[in-house]
Amino acid sequence: MPELRKDPVTGRWVIISTDRARRPSDFLREKVVPQGGFCPFCPGQEDRTPREIMAYRPNGGAPNTPGWTVRVVPNKFPALGIEGELARRGEGMFDKMNGIGAHEVIIESPDHMQSLATLPLKGVEDVLWAFRDRILDLKKDKRFRYILIFKNHGEPAGASLEHPHSQLIALPIVPSYVREEMDGAKAFYGQKERCIFCDIIRQELQSQVRVIEDSTDFLTVAPWAPRFPFETCILPKQHESAVENSPSGHYEGLARALKNVLGKLNQALESPAYNLVIHTSPVMESTNDYYHWHIELMPKLTKVAEFEWGTGFYINPTPPEEAAAFLRDAHVD
Amino acid sequence: MPELRKDPVTGRWVIISTDRARRPSDFLREKVVPQGGFCPFCPGQEDRTPREIMAYRPNGGAPNTPGWTVRVVPNKFPALGIEGELARRGEGMFDKMNGIGAHEVIIESPDHMQSLATLPLKGVEDVLWAFRDRILDLKKDKRFRYILIFKNHGEPAGASLEHPHSQLIALPIVPSYVREEMDGAKAFYGQKERCIFCDIIRQELQSQVRVIEDSTDFLTVAPWAPRFPFETCILPKQHESAVENSPSGHYEGLARALKNVLGKLNQALESPAYNLVIHTSPVMESTNDYYHWHIELMPKLTKVAEFEWGTGFYINPTPPEEAAAFLRDAHVD
Repeated sequence: MPELRKDPVTGRWVIISTDRARRPSDFLREKVVPQGGFCPFCPGQEDRTPREIMAYRPNGGAPNTPGWTVRVVPNKFPALGIEGELARRGEGMFDKMNGIGAHEVIIESPDHMQSLATLPLKGVEDVLWAFRDRILDLKKDKRFRYILIFKNHGEPAGASLEHPHSQLIALPIVPSYVREEMDGAKAFYGQKERCIFCDIIRQELQSQVRVIEDSTDFLTVAPWAPRFPFETCILPKQHESAVENSPSGHYEGLARALKNVLGKLNQALESPAYNLVIHTSPVMESTNDYYHWHIELMPKLTKVAEFEWGTGFYINPTPPEEAAAFLRDAHVD
Repeated sequence: MPELRKDPVTGRWVIISTDRARRPSDFLREKVVPQGGFCPFCPGQEDRTPREIMAYRPNGGAPNTPGWTVRVVPNKFPALGIEGELARRGEGMFDKMNGIGAHEVIIESPDHMQSLATLPLKGVEDVLWAFRDRILDLKKDKRFRYILIFKNHGEPAGASLEHPHSQLIALPIVPSYVREEMDGAKAFYGQKERCIFCDIIRQELQSQVRVIEDSTDFLTVAPWAPRFPFETCILPKQHESAVENSPSGHYEGLARALKNVLGKLNQALESPAYNLVIHTSPVMESTNDYYHWHIELMPKLTKVAEFEWGTGFYINPTPPEEAAAFLRDAHVD
């Protein structure tokens, strides 16, 4: 018998179907393996990207030259323009504004063949520090209300270049999927005076069935009502509303949690494409008691998970308890 | 300069990017052309499907034999089970219920090689009547709160069989994308005492720039803030909250509007895959003044529109005014 489960934060119902394909081997997918070849993100090609915004150069060196470990550049084909006024206005009953925003690329390593799963721990930690540096800088720009950090890994997940990179988009609006989570979290807080994510963490730690990894400061789980097979979530165990507010002592632990879960996905699902999104509080309410930042990770498994297309309603053939068991058991070096 | 536009019903902001690919020829896509071959939905194969729920047989004949024009059968691999109690219950702070529901397939024509765009008008109209017959029947089952009708056309859109068919899922919950639209429409009605969709129709008819086709009873438009290139919407011009409440005199006009816009998409985009979803009121509030049923149609154009993956935030490279102009000009026989 399939089950209908309600996401406690957004109120979204999902069908967890147990009669269909569900084990890792039941999914068709493309193995993501870097091929190499010419790449504008590789060292020595610094003039192929727009001029860098920042870079980590542990041994020094001039901007836009090799020697960096992490490098941030404007997206060459930005979805939004950085210059200008928002000019919020109506067109009859409709609302619009200029598409002002920042669209940046975080090049995660000089090594084309690496990924967040294979980089040394320090390399992953540096990527997280780069996220924080960029967020703190962009928050100074009063036009921006939300800073969205995400990663498309592999072509099936939408990546157009294989060199390891993440993206950042600073927006003058709060995306509706964030607004929904904020609304749900606020409503819960209004009733209970507790953060709903903190409650979820307590319950997941007690039941253990959806826990993938439990470390000192972070918890990796398969969520109660996942939309996609092998969807996973990394949460800080102590309440923290925005990722950039994380104490500096947490970065190594977060890097390890991220590297571990990606290694487990690679092992269990044979290096799948995936999307990663950091869910964090909007700029104007970045310190609050009701919202709890987290990372959502969605492997892109084709052919089976396509029910959602267009309907906005999800059927997930893999119960999160089974996904968690597979990933718990997946061996990471 | 790209533009940020707000969907007036859901409040969702979308980036309408004008600097990227945007003309029909800029999109990669797979042309959907039926190949034929063995098919369980073809006449003579009636015993390959579960026993039929209903069928139109203009010349009579026994159930589960050839001679039908439209045939409705249970989905052989249903996402939900039809038998049993809902058994709503909690698991700590989480909520769930049994996955009870109906999952049916509407086989739209005995002819494997046809589609809604190529069927005679009467054939399309019969499909719409079949939708209504099934909705009216399923509404009697007090376990169901929403009846979702959708169509995946072509493999890239999630269709697993090429014989023309739609699907129906009766659900004991209201999907969250419907709840969002209902909430937005109710809030607008609370302020204005007018249906927001009726206001949209009036404004679109006045400005004309996003109108694709305007007929006696239906309006086909490219919406103000579309998520996807060439997304289109068919609305009844007179207020009607639920599709099954449509006056019988409207079915021919709706069939023509649907056939025409699909023909135009085929012509402008070379027979793309697409998803079609009927947005209608939930069973328990099927007659109301604030929600207005409509059809959403999303061509599946690959490689460009993939930004959304995982982020829940949309960048659309084709302004709806340009999409509407292309589709207005597309010639349909």
